[in-house]
Amino acid sequence: MAEITEECGIFAAFSLNADEDVVPFVYNGLFSLQHRGQEAAGVALLSNGSIEVYKGLGLVNQALREIEGKSPTSNMVLGHVRCSSSGERSVVNVQPFVGHTAHGDIAIANNGNLVNSRNLREDLTKRGTLLQTRTDAELILASIAKNSRLDMQSAISQAVSQTVGAYSFVLMDSNSFYALRDPQGMKPLCVGRLADIYMISSESCAFENCGAEFLFEIDPGELVIINQEGIQRQNVLSIEDPALCVFEYIYLARPDSILAGKSVHQIRRALGRELGREKPLDADLVMAAPESGTSAALGLASELGLPFDIGLVKNRYVGRTFIRPDQKTRQNALRLKLTPIAPVLKDKKVILVDDSIVRGNTSRKTVKLLREGGAKEVAVYIASPPFKHPCFYGVDATNPKDLIANSLSKEEIRQAIGADILEFLSLEGLYRAIGVSAQEICSGCFSGKYPTVIDI
Amino acid sequence: MAEITEECGIFAAFSLNADEDVVPFVYNGLFSLQHRGQEAAGVALLSNGSIEVYKGLGLVNQALREIEGKSPTSNMVLGHVRCSSSGERSVVNVQPFVGHTAHGDIAIANNGNLVNSRNLREDLTKRGTLLQTRTDAELILASIAKNSRLDMQSAISQAVSQTVGAYSFVLMDSNSFYALRDPQGMKPLCVGRLADIYMISSESCAFENCGAEFLFEIDPGELVIINQEGIQRQNVLSIEDPALCVFEYIYLARPDSILAGKSVHQIRRALGRELGREKPLDADLVMAAPESGTSAALGLASELGLPFDIGLVKNRYVGRTFIRPDQKTRQNALRLKLTPIAPVLKDKKVILVDDSIVRGNTSRKTVKLLREGGAKEVAVYIASPPFKHPCFYGVDATNPKDLIANSLSKEEIRQAIGADILEFLSLEGLYRAIGVSAQEICSGCFSGKYPTVIDI
Amino acid sequence: MAEITEECGIFAAFSLNADEDVVPFVYNGLFSLQHRGQEAAGVALLSNGSIEVYKGLGLVNQALREIEGKSPTSNMVLGHVRCSSSGERSVVNVQPFVGHTAHGDIAIANNGNLVNSRNLREDLTKRGTLLQTRTDAELILASIAKNSRLDMQSAISQAVSQTVGAYSFVLMDSNSFYALRDPQGMKPLCVGRLADIYMISSESCAFENCGAEFLFEIDPGELVIINQEGIQRQNVLSIEDPALCVFEYIYLARPDSILAGKSVHQIRRALGRELGREKPLDADLVMAAPESGTSAALGLASELGLPFDIGLVKNRYVGRTFIRPDQKTRQNALRLKLTPIAPVLKDKKVILVDDSIVRGNTSRKTVKLLREGGAKEVAVYIASPPFKHPCFYGVDATNPKDLIANSLSKEEIRQAIGADILEFLSLEGLYRAIGVSAQEICSGCFSGKYPTVIDI
Amino acid sequence: MAEITEECGIFAAFSLNADEDVVPFVYNGLFSLQHRGQEAAGVALLSNGSIEVYKGLGLVNQALREIEGKSPTSNMVLGHVRCSSSGERSVVNVQPFVGHTAHGDIAIANNGNLVNSRNLREDLTKRGTLLQTRTDAELILASIAKNSRLDMQSAISQAVSQTVGAYSFVLMDSNSFYALRDPQGMKPLCVGRLADIYMISSESCAFENCGAEFLFEIDPGELVIINQEGIQRQNVLSIEDPALCVFEYIYLARPDSILAGKSVHQIRRALGRELGREKPLDADLVMAAPESGTSAALGLASELGLPFDIGLVKNRYVGRTFIRPDQKTRQNALRLKLTPIAPVLKDKKVILVDDSIVRGNTSRKTVKLLREGGAKEVAVYIASPPFKHPCFYGVDATNPKDLIANSLSKEEIRQAIGADILEFLSLEGLYRAIGVSAQEICSGCFSGKYPTVIDI
Repeated sequence: MAEITEECGIFAAFSLNADEDVVPFVYNGLFSLQHRGQEAAGVALLSNGSIEVYKGLGLVNQALREIEGKSPTSNMVLGHVRCSSSGERSVVNVQPFVGHTAHGDIAIANNGNLVNSRNLREDLTKRGTLLQTRTDAELILASIAKNSRLDMQSAISQAVSQTVGAYSFVLMDSNSFYALRDPQGMKPLCVGRLADIYMISSESCAFENCGAEFLFEIDPGELVIINQEGIQRQNVLSIEDPALCVFEYIYLARPDSILAGKSVHQIRRALGRELGREKPLDADLVMAAPESGTSAALGLASELGLPFDIGLVKNRYVGRTFIRPDQKTRQNALRLKLTPIAPVLKDKKVILVDDSIVRGNTSRKTVKLLREGGAKEVAVYIASPPFKHPCFYGVDATNPKDLIANSLSKEEIRQAIGADILEFLSLEGLYRAIGVSAQEICSGCFSGKYPTVIDI
Repeated sequence: MAEITEECGIFAAFSLNADEDVVPFVYNGLFSLQHRGQEAAGVALLSNGSIEVYKGLGLVNQALREIEGKSPTSNMVLGHVRCSSSGERSVVNVQPFVGHTAHGDIAIANNGNLVNSRNLREDLTKRGTLLQTRTDAELILASIAKNSRLDMQSAISQAVSQTVGAYSFVLMDSNSFYALRDPQGMKPLCVGRLADIYMISSESCAFENCGAEFLFEIDPGELVIINQEGIQRQNVLSIEDPALCVFEYIYLARPDSILAGKSVHQIRRALGRELGREKPLDADLVMAAPESGTSAALGLASELGLPFDIGLVKNRYVGRTFIRPDQKTRQNALRLKLTPIAPVLKDKKVILVDDSIVRGNTSRKTVKLLREGGAKEVAVYIASPPFKHPCFYGVDATNPKDLIANSLSKEEIRQAIGADILEFLSLEGLYRAIGVSAQEICSGCFSGKYPTVIDI
Repeated sequence: MAEITEECGIFAAFSLNADEDVVPFVYNGLFSLQHRGQEAAGVALLSNGSIEVYKGLGLVNQALREIEGKSPTSNMVLGHVRCSSSGERSVVNVQPFVGHTAHGDIAIANNGNLVNSRNLREDLTKRGTLLQTRTDAELILASIAKNSRLDMQSAISQAVSQTVGAYSFVLMDSNSFYALRDPQGMKPLCVGRLADIYMISSESCAFENCGAEFLFEIDPGELVIINQEGIQRQNVLSIEDPALCVFEYIYLARPDSILAGKSVHQIRRALGRELGREKPLDADLVMAAPESGTSAALGLASELGLPFDIGLVKNRYVGRTFIRPDQKTRQNALRLKLTPIAPVLKDKKVILVDDSIVRGNTSRKTVKLLREGGAKEVAVYIASPPFKHPCFYGVDATNPKDLIANSLSKEEIRQAIGADILEFLSLEGLYRAIGVSAQEICSGCFSGKYPTVIDI
Repeated sequence: MAEITEECGIFAAFSLNADEDVVPFVYNGLFSLQHRGQEAAGVALLSNGSIEVYKGLGLVNQALREIEGKSPTSNMVLGHVRCSSSGERSVVNVQPFVGHTAHGDIAIANNGNLVNSRNLREDLTKRGTLLQTRTDAELILASIAKNSRLDMQSAISQAVSQTVGAYSFVLMDSNSFYALRDPQGMKPLCVGRLADIYMISSESCAFENCGAEFLFEIDPGELVIINQEGIQRQNVLSIEDPALCVFEYIYLARPDSILAGKSVHQIRRALGRELGREKPLDADLVMAAPESGTSAALGLASELGLPFDIGLVKNRYVGRTFIRPDQKTRQNALRLKLTPIAPVLKDKKVILVDDSIVRGNTSRKTVKLLREGGAKEVAVYIASPPFKHPCFYGVDATNPKDLIANSLSKEEIRQAIGADILEFLSLEGLYRAIGVSAQEICSGCFSGKYPTVIDI
């Protein structure tokens, strides 16, 4: 049975001043993380000692319409945006989840994908625990609730000692936030502050949008507790080699975020630069596959000394492609999304830079559009290696069949997308551009080497 | 902590023909039970071996808009409508709930209120089970899931051996429906059939609306199992004195339903007739408090040989009063809801018949309206005894302070509602009209004698 | 080309106190007139010297959601609810309409149907006036605008000297309301008052709901002007024989309204009484076709000395049948709308009283339901004559083919609806019950004699 | 009284094949023109010889939800998107308008603003024509309807001989489309084709999105008639000096459109290049004010040989600023819209390129954001001259007080927006970059010289 793969964003805020309402910050924080999940959003907040939840399907401003209507206030709020690849768009699966446990009310919001969820699920149901969703967030919450005789912190430590895979979650009880990243730090999570308000976010960009200061990234395996006594940090899991998802750098994160101390935009420029060094080429112009290829394209154009221009215009009234649930929507959307600018392209040799190729459909259509726009020759430059292997940690690419590079060679892909030239960044170039070794990052999608056992 | 009090309706349908879609029957069945819950509705259905859920807030046609859009089909569907008295109008609390358990997927829809839920909840959380709502339905489901090593039927029997209070629930796994009433049968549940389709409903009226035949009422303590092999009935709980909620006869059920073999409308007429016998009075006309007093008013008018007329017109575009969540809505609603017909009332001595007085607000305003309409004298005749004691089994009247008869004498109530005369049916008259003894029905709200221990 | 037939309700309010907001009164007034039109609603209000409009499709609380959101205030507000029989459910056709004319901004809301609209329309378009809807309200407004050199009052008089048919309208400019009924007073319109606020309403029932006093019904051909100087009444049309629509008494108006000085409910009782006198019959019980037959059924039961009872229960969550736009909805709706109460009907001879038969579908299904409920014999008693002739003045019955009595004899209708006995009230009985002569009322739908020429 | 200023987009489609449905093309075409109006959308279509209209507020996919639901089909469809600067967001003002005239049903959709509308309005109302909106589209339609005795083409010619100002409209009767641009061609309108389908669009970019071929731009003063006989072109107005709105090049049009034979993107690059030539400056990087400054920034960076980079990230889930109705929304929106990328900006001298400064608010906030992001020095380069004078032809800038350059000097603006350096393109540079003389374009907003008399 297929588990729900999740790409998600978390934003939480806690004010030391019990009278201060942090709902607007969480609303805006979620809005800033909207690119991490467009399918559903939810907010849990502490209200008179118990936890209330507001949830809905759609973008933040749609999904949280109820919270706009009722205007609850709270100094302790946990929010989540979500995208799922499966068809289960039910409100039942929308986070945060709230559990009524021996530790009182607990809410959870999680990002990432466990790879031993089947076992965990079986253990829990066999011992008679009721599970009501197919999400990892509920599994983690149920695993904590199971440890009813331990104190909260021990209950968490004990629970996550059983979980394998990628997770970054924030728990909220009636006093504290507990934020934890898996021992390899596969999914990002960081802490910010604005005066009396502590904030936890999947990405640092949300702090900027809220006017807050970026304090630190939570370390892999680190548990951060935030409550009236301030912030407490402690390692609760034996740390392993770090394995931040490389796809966060390549595509998922916003360019204005900082991950593992590095600027996402700068890394993307570096990827383009590296690609230029590896595969020099002359051309009339360099352009980006809108919009995710722009940073890399700028790096490549500068490296090769070629002019950068805009060859395709994107209708700003559509969202981005990769993250939508079903294949069909993806295809229809593109038709209206991009238009070639013929005067730019006419009779030109063009280098089209994209961040990655996953399914290949977008590339094929984009190349076709460029030719319709008059381009004489189209070289497709991908600022990452071939995406050959499924991701089990949360990127919507669990099925090898969906991955064009899984079954086709570079030359076959070139033909499939209709390009004159196709080049990928090498795996070494990827590490070089990011400034890490293969042991310091998860690049399982490219290398097939996963940082954990996979037991799905 | 206040549990959520529930008045609810359940409707389920199962076709022996796996290709037959019963979604429309459940939709219509819920619509027929709409009077039992206007706040939320949900439907669980079997689809390719797993259970899908659709839920929403509002009336059936609003709450189940998604199901109209997506048009799923299934031969096995469980539905629920719900009304809560507390403010927790969150979609999280909407039934059916689906549990993923050692027995596979199970959905539950319940009607009634347990009176030992605090204990059950504590037992479950202490043993580490995760609870995600404050509902009894989830408690029952979790209690069943707990018995992971028993077969389904034993797991149910074992679970309900711990529950005290009113409950009527339907469980659905991937093969069967399991319908059970508490050992005293406090909340109704019955079975119908239309060709290959078995139906389970809170009230028999829904069968009529679906064109189905009413087969039987489930006995107190009886478990009914419906699957491909047909219907199986067996007693799983030691039966106690029956204690059907008397308020179902008086107000809650639809007049076209049959409860414990008796026509609700006929019982209401009998209540009015009995009241006429107990408290004869001369008047110019008998009228009903719209609309729930009509049956009783007809009985009373006929008993007293007085003309029955319509003294108040109800705007048909508002729902009924008693069942709405907050007090304020109740007050605003009435202003636009009723208009006196002056030509009927002018200088007349009027007997206004109502089914019951709970809070007294509606009565006070209705009497006021009649006087504004010109009535010379208003006698208020209540076709049930004073509602003095809280109900712990599911009627929205858990707080004694809300009950006017809890603190005021008959004379004080008369003054409070501004009537010239006020009469109630006696407790004995109530039993007489229904044709039961005190031991055969729950009249705790009138007598203070409850059929179970109360441990809330 | 088919004109849009309209059944409508109008409610307007004007406060002498410029700072007093009358929007809530108009909102509530329209709600009270909801039975006159469930398809759309609109409100025009004076705001800083110009007229703003809010409109929408659906019931008042749906259609005017925007006004609830924006909360505009005004001391001068004109509202309208509308039902159309044709398929044109566009918001373009929703009243009030606002015209920018040589007389400044003017809003109009109208009830009724002109019978020379084709000519009026042709005259206007030929002279180059732009018409943007197919409604009579716009025709009247355009006809007034045409008289750009006359003062407002003369412009109105001049315009209506050309119109033939049923109309009751309220105009609003930046100073005054102008309310006018056609010279035969075919459609109702009346005036009420609450302290500083004058109100104009299609029916008096709305005054009760607003807590206002009912002042007077506007006379046929009378123009009522309301502004800072109070109320001014004057006859602007040579008065002809009054011809109030008899169907207002029979079905359209709310029973708590007063029309031509008579209580609608009392008239309906009298119709039933008269029917009882004309066609005496013995039976076990008299019951009403829910809900519009109730008043007449009470009159008939009392006249015949037979018990009145409830044989059918109506699901209160559906609206009434007659007024819905398409035939298909009508059929589906009934199935869920009514349930027979078998214990009442079983082996009984039943007189089913209904206000009228238009298409016959509802009667046929109701009789069928009664038989399914066990009735031994069903006599259908219609408290009005056979509806044989189309109505051109606003009742949704312009097509003779839709009228069962147009083509079938009484005996054929009896068979068509499956009744054992069918009786209608005679035309004389109708007049007798109402207390008018044939010359004092429009009963064209029964007699075929129309009070105006018909030029459609 | 303030007329409604309109920025709008038009898209129409006509298939020679009467059975071919062109609704999807118009829907998609409007979507492609969404940047021209985000406030409302409407569609008129020919159905069985008469014209049906669908309208709503909001973006296309919201406003035309009804058309998605009902799925009407037609081979002749006219659509419109609209943005208004005033507060009148009523559905009453949404185009297309349909008139019932002596020429039959006519629909109109217009882009532009007349400058003698007061006179036209007065003339029409004085002669007794009813006007129901404050829009120019209705004025034009009423002026055509007025000529009831002329044939359609003459009626149009006669009507537009009275209108002064900017207009581009498409009329639809039951046979033909009539598309016309004002004699100076101030607003764009062009014709495309896809097999049997002719299309008319405000901008050529929409043809690309529909897969259609761009045939020609309608000439100033030219009337294009499209019907079963194909396309007919004729001049109906004495042509004057062309005066295409220069702001279409600078900001309004999509970069992938062609206007007066020139690529909008290329013109914008040329504006940046010209600005670089006029005001050379050394800096660490050139960046664009997102997103409208990108083309010009690329031109400037290339001219000056400076690196182009991304210094601000825009949240793709918000629309663009300039075009929103109220000032307050503009301010709140920016906070969440843009984030500086500190690693790019830190200690850098930055040239920020924007297309224009209208109110100055956005520039001030953007400069502030750049400084917060660490920029050492910020030079603001505007690729157009100071916007000093109001626009009367449709750009939302009718009030001189809203224009920062109307009252402040360059130095004062620099201080107001907090820049270290501020430079504008000269008027001559503007003409040079576009390749026109001052007599061939409307640059009234910069020069104060308007191509028509202004009589507002």
